[in-house]
Order: sequence, then structure tokens, then C-alpha cells
Amino acid sequence: MNTFGQHISQQFNAELEDVRQRVMAMGGLVEQQIADAVTALIDGRSDLAAEVEQGDVKVNTFEVHIDEECSRILARRQPTASDLRLVVAVIKTITDLERIGDEAERIARMASSLAKEEPPRAAFHEIENLGHHVRRMVGEALDAFARMDSRAALAVAEEDAKVDREYESIMRQCMTFMMEDPRTVKRVLDIMWAVRALERIGDHSRNIAEYVIYFVEGKDVRHISVEQMARELEKSR
Amino acid sequence: MNTFGQHISQQFNAELEDVRQRVMAMGGLVEQQIADAVTALIDGRSDLAAEVEQGDVKVNTFEVHIDEECSRILARRQPTASDLRLVVAVIKTITDLERIGDEAERIARMASSLAKEEPPRAAFHEIENLGHHVRRMVGEALDAFARMDSRAALAVAEEDAKVDREYESIMRQCMTFMMEDPRTVKRVLDIMWAVRALERIGDHSRNIAEYVIYFVEGKDVRHISVEQMARELEKSR
Repeated sequence: MNTFGQHISQQFNAELEDVRQRVMAMGGLVEQQIADAVTALIDGRSDLAAEVEQGDVKVNTFEVHIDEECSRILARRQPTASDLRLVVAVIKTITDLERIGDEAERIARMASSLAKEEPPRAAFHEIENLGHHVRRMVGEALDAFARMDSRAALAVAEEDAKVDREYESIMRQCMTFMMEDPRTVKRVLDIMWAVRALERIGDHSRNIAEYVIYFVEGKDVRHISVEQMARELEKSR
Repeated sequence: MNTFGQHISQQFNAELEDVRQRVMAMGGLVEQQIADAVTALIDGRSDLAAEVEQGDVKVNTFEVHIDEECSRILARRQPTASDLRLVVAVIKTITDLERIGDEAERIARMASSLAKEEPPRAAFHEIENLGHHVRRMVGEALDAFARMDSRAALAVAEEDAKVDREYESIMRQCMTFMMEDPRTVKRVLDIMWAVRALERIGDHSRNIAEYVIYFVEGKDVRHISVEQMARELEKSR
């Protein structure tokens, strides 16, 4: 490669690295939003809930800016092969991160609404655990993204099934709570919407993990079971 | 432009047109999935619900293929300006169409579960209306996409607020139903999850409308109010 080519390529690498850094920063912010939203819900802290609701603007701004940067790179650098896959993976990843941010905002709204009255403490301990669990999943999906590690990404996808089971168990507890005391219906429903949002965060983390596998292996592993996914990765050893 | 250039460009146009056609076909399928899922729910038809659940595989296949085609176009044609914006808009649009498909599948699952027993007819008439409404929204978002009409896209975004109001009203009715007869809690909850899925379809239609505006105007109008969106479009008259 001639010096000019090297120069271009160094600049291009710096641009790609910058985009990756921004995705990680966006991810870090989103993780914090989840943690704060769950704390607001569990501890009945409407001040923290309000912070999360305001913080969503920052998440959105990240998305718009990273998207612009990706379009600029596509237009000016016309990347191919793995560079192109990286840009496409970023475009998709930030959409899911932004929607995780929306789910955190939803949880915060429910927390605000519940903080006004005595919330029925239906399954609060389990909800706190689920909150930690999905936050960790987001973190692990981002780590897999940062290191472009398809094994780590597979582990995230596997984790999603556990989240779904925890979710089902909490939902059953909430239902029993409502049936035993119908006066709690409205408030328990708020809790259920928040729990549903946590479950969705698990789904979005799995999506991000799938984009990592797409990037690393060049294989589209969406819409297949985790077992099939594991076999696909095994083949490419 | 020389003959060779023209030849390339004609082929390229044909490829872009093919992608657009496929998005429309995917959209048509998704619209049908919504209609069938709602009918299955309202009429208690588990056969139709099963069809919708099976049909989701076709929706997913569309997404994977269109995605591959877009990556191929980005790598081989290295599009710029409005061609690039079109490809990016397509990549984002099919993600939302696929998730609308997932919501239709969720509604079908609830329909299956409800068909097994006498469903409480909580707000069924309103749910049917909401179903028609969001299906129309998806259709209008796709029309706006096909004609790349930012005015029509704005109308879709405006419609979303109406969907949200209908959703709130149905939710209140369901809550009253549960409180009056706690034995219905589990079944009314199934209905509420289905209604929530319809509301989400409205959100996804709005997202698609926003990509159309991004394509036509070159402006990112996500995360702003419909009023701001209308002003942005006014400026570019």
C-alpha cells in the first residue's frame, strides 16, 4: 500500500474506532439508566425516576449522532467486507440500545406512578434480581461487541432463556397478588409493565449479541434457536 | 455518462427497485399477519392463530434476505447521497416490519390461549377497532415508503397519538373488568398483552414513517414531537 493509501486507511481506522467507542459510551449510559430505573422502582424514589426520564434525551442524542457518523463513513469510505459488516452491526446495535433506553424510561414512569402511593410489594426481591440480571446481560453483550467475541455473544443469547423463566415466575406471583386483593390491580399492573420492560431488555441484549456473531462469523443467526446458533459457531471453529 | 456507466446505473436502479418491491411484499405479509391475529383473537379461532404463528417464519426470511441484498448493494455499488439513504432506510424499515411480525405472533399466541376457554369479552369491539386502526397505519406507512412521500409519512406519525388514546381507554376497561371479577384476571391479562402488542405496532409504524422523512428530506426526525416534525417539513417546502 502506498503512503497515501496508508494515510487514508489510518484515518479510516481511527473513524471506525471512534464509532466503536461511542457505541460503548452509549451502552454505558443505557446500563446506568436501567440500574437507576430499577432502584427508583424498588426504593420508591421519584427523584431518581425523573432523572432517568430526563436522561433518555442523552441516549437518543447518542443514537442520532452515531447514525450520522455511520452514514458518513458509508458514503465517504465505501467500506467492504468486515469494515462494512462492522458499520451495519453498529447501525443495528444502536437501534436496540436506544430501545433499551426506552424500556428504562418506561420502568422509570411506572416507578414515578408507584412512588405516589404505597406500592404492593409483589415480588420486589425477584424484580430486583431480574433487574441486575438484564443489566448484566446488556453489559456482557457490549463486552462481546467491544472484543468482537462470538463465544461471549452466544453466552448472552443463552442467558435470555433464563431471563424469560424469571419473568414468567414474577408474572405468576403478580397475578396471584391481584386475585387475592383486587384493590391492588392498578398498582400491580404498573409493576407488571415494568417487569415486562425488563424482559424486553433481555431480548434486545440478545439481538445485540446476534449482530456480534454476524460481524465475527459473517453469518446471520437471527431467528434460530440458541442450540442451532451454538452448532453454527462450532462449524466455524 | 458513457454507455458502460449507463449500463451499470440501469442495473443498479433495477437492484434498488427490486429491494423496494421486496420491502412492499414483506409489508403486505405483515399486514395480513396483523389482520389474521386480530380475527383469531376476536373470533376465538385457534386454527388461524396457528397459521399466524407459522407465518412468522416467512416474515423472518424476508428480513434476512433483504438485509443480505442491502449489504451486497452497499459493498458492490457503494451508493452515495439519496441511494445510500434509501438503503439505510430499508435496513431500518425491515427491522421494524420484522418486529411488527413478532407482535402479530404474540397476539396470535394470546388468541390460542384464550380460544381454549370462554374469553371474557372485555372491550372486544374496541380491540377490533384498534386492530383495524394499526393495520391501516402499517399500510399507510408502507404507502408513504413506496411513494417516498414525507407528507403522508407525517400523517402516520400524527395517527400514533390517536392509537395511544384508544389503547389507554381499552386498558382502563380491562382493569375495571378484572377488579369487578377477579376470577377473570388471568384471561383479561392475556387480552391486555394483545392490546399492548397492537399499541406497539403503532409505534413501529411511526418509526417507518420517520425513516421515510429521513430519506426524502435528509433530516433525522426521530425523538421530536409531531408538531416539531410538521414544522421541519414546512421549512423544506
